[in-house]
Amino acid sequence: MKKGMTKVSVMYPNGADKKFDMNYYCNTHLPLVVELLGDKLKGASAEEGIGSAAPGATAPFASIGTMYFDSPEDFGAAFGPNATKIMGDIPNFTNIEPIVQVSTVV
Amino acid sequence: MKKGMTKVSVMYPNGADKKFDMNYYCNTHLPLVVELLGDKLKGASAEEGIGSAAPGATAPFASIGTMYFDSPEDFGAAFGPNATKIMGDIPNFTNIEPIVQVSTVV
Repeated sequence: MKKGMTKVSVMYPNGADKKFDMNYYCNTHLPLVVELLGDKLKGASAEEGIGSAAPGATAPFASIGTMYFDSPEDFGAAFGPNATKIMGDIPNFTNIEPIVQVSTVV
Repeated sequence: MKKGMTKVSVMYPNGADKKFDMNYYCNTHLPLVVELLGDKLKGASAEEGIGSAAPGATAPFASIGTMYFDSPEDFGAAFGPNATKIMGDIPNFTNIEPIVQVSTVV
């Protein structure tokens, strides 16, 4: 994605007794998010954690979802009115409370 | 990036007394990493943390660097022999110990 864009990462930390339904996440949650955020969302991807720096180590995050917007204001305008619906769907696929990172692509 | 690719994120958590020299990171560290990893590295980007879900909140991570490879094996083959040089450059721009996430793009 282009320099200056706003990147929003939703990160699900791994841990004891943590569950994450990748099938629901990919096939139900992400399509819901894409539909709700509309055309302010300029791109999205998802990843499944498989490891860390040391071979065989557990991935720090079970999954990370990434979204791109033209500006932090566009993210706020798209996410704000849909926050309740989007956050309300999270317990349907995981008991992990996600960490949200908002960044500027440099 | 394409489904099935290996995504490696190097994340620098924010915190009290943490320092991060974005200028050195972008202009010296990242070019060094790109040069050392060679053609197994299929793409790279960097971001500067500006916030979180709640307006005005601090970004969980000062910065995140992202690299793409065709496979976890390619990452291991490119990073392994250069790990000492790459990790040894980190104290030149930050006192943060990074978290490394290896994922599959889904």
